[in-house]
Amino acid sequence: MTEKEYRIIEIKENIFADNNKDADALRQTLKEKGTFFLNIMSSPGSGKTTTLTQVIPRLAQKYKIGVMEADIDSDVDAATITAIGAKAIQLHTGGMCHLTAEMTRQGIEALEEDFDFLILENVGNLVCPAEFDTGSVKNLTILSVPEGDDKPLKYPLMYQVSHALVINKIDVAPYFDFDIEKCKANALMRNPDLDIIPISAKTGEGVDELCAWLEREIEAWKNS
Amino acid sequence: MTEKEYRIIEIKENIFADNNKDADALRQTLKEKGTFFLNIMSSPGSGKTTTLTQVIPRLAQKYKIGVMEADIDSDVDAATITAIGAKAIQLHTGGMCHLTAEMTRQGIEALEEDFDFLILENVGNLVCPAEFDTGSVKNLTILSVPEGDDKPLKYPLMYQVSHALVINKIDVAPYFDFDIEKCKANALMRNPDLDIIPISAKTGEGVDELCAWLEREIEAWKNS
Repeated sequence: MTEKEYRIIEIKENIFADNNKDADALRQTLKEKGTFFLNIMSSPGSGKTTTLTQVIPRLAQKYKIGVMEADIDSDVDAATITAIGAKAIQLHTGGMCHLTAEMTRQGIEALEEDFDFLILENVGNLVCPAEFDTGSVKNLTILSVPEGDDKPLKYPLMYQVSHALVINKIDVAPYFDFDIEKCKANALMRNPDLDIIPISAKTGEGVDELCAWLEREIEAWKNS
Repeated sequence: MTEKEYRIIEIKENIFADNNKDADALRQTLKEKGTFFLNIMSSPGSGKTTTLTQVIPRLAQKYKIGVMEADIDSDVDAATITAIGAKAIQLHTGGMCHLTAEMTRQGIEALEEDFDFLILENVGNLVCPAEFDTGSVKNLTILSVPEGDDKPLKYPLMYQVSHALVINKIDVAPYFDFDIEKCKANALMRNPDLDIIPISAKTGEGVDELCAWLEREIEAWKNS
């Protein structure tokens, strides 16, 4: 086996921590370093990693980007991100279904560099990750067309804590009973402030709009 | 609003419970009643409910079937199951990402009837539900084609605790980079005893094989 270009680290939860306090402290540290930190959450297989392989090359000229890939097991995602030339680290949660701010901090320290744009690809799960503030500046959730337009009804907290919703895999919409307007209405019912961006991470459709949203948020954070 | 044909109950976790003991006791009670209890787990949107709408009409002549639909919120699934004429109940977990055996017992009691074949549609989540024995006789997990063939690598425990894997949405396989043989190999690497059944819950392809598997398991349990 050849040496990997990314590290895999085991992160541990501190069950005595005050997560909200840790998250605020982490955000403050990142603010001082000029780092915009995005937490991406979704169901397994919604296309978090594929979306990143579209977004990163478009923004890499302008920003120094680092990616933390969180998973129960495996390192397929860190390998994918490293293959497109970005700095990535694989975080293994030891069976944990979510990341806390303290676990995120361990990941950031293990990256050993400062970034303009830091991305956490959270554990694929619509329930638990929504319950823990990771210290992110913004939360983005991805819903893919094959999952169905009713998902915002079933996982309300995920939509309430998110700032943007990416509707992914719109290229396969003709093959599924998916009503994009109904999906948007369901999502906005959960969170009227949600920015909704339909994309196909496979074909690249809509990715420019997503990058424009990200640039706006990164610049707003830097200038805040 | 018209009166609903199914109940919605709020179930609560008893954090002091010994879940494995509760699960064994529940299995014993169900055994005495001649009830086969199947726990279905998957990622959100894999097609648990749609699969049930195919399976239930095929087996309803032979078995009395009851369905527990577990969700954080909403009752769309119980409504769907009731619409096909089956007895269903909606369990709200109050934000919990999984069901324990005690929570399951509360659902079974609320159904207020005995069944030959009792089905729990667990919370859509590949992580937490795998960690708790619900008292089921068999566990079935569903992976849908759009989620990707690498998912068994990422969620090992789900595959280890499952007896069967349904690969759903095979009708859309031509539109995704999904290698069914690679998926099977990944799944069998996690659990060599897994029975793997490819289906399309939309077109009905493979559903007879799934029903045959279920009948075998139900009869084996009754005669054990």
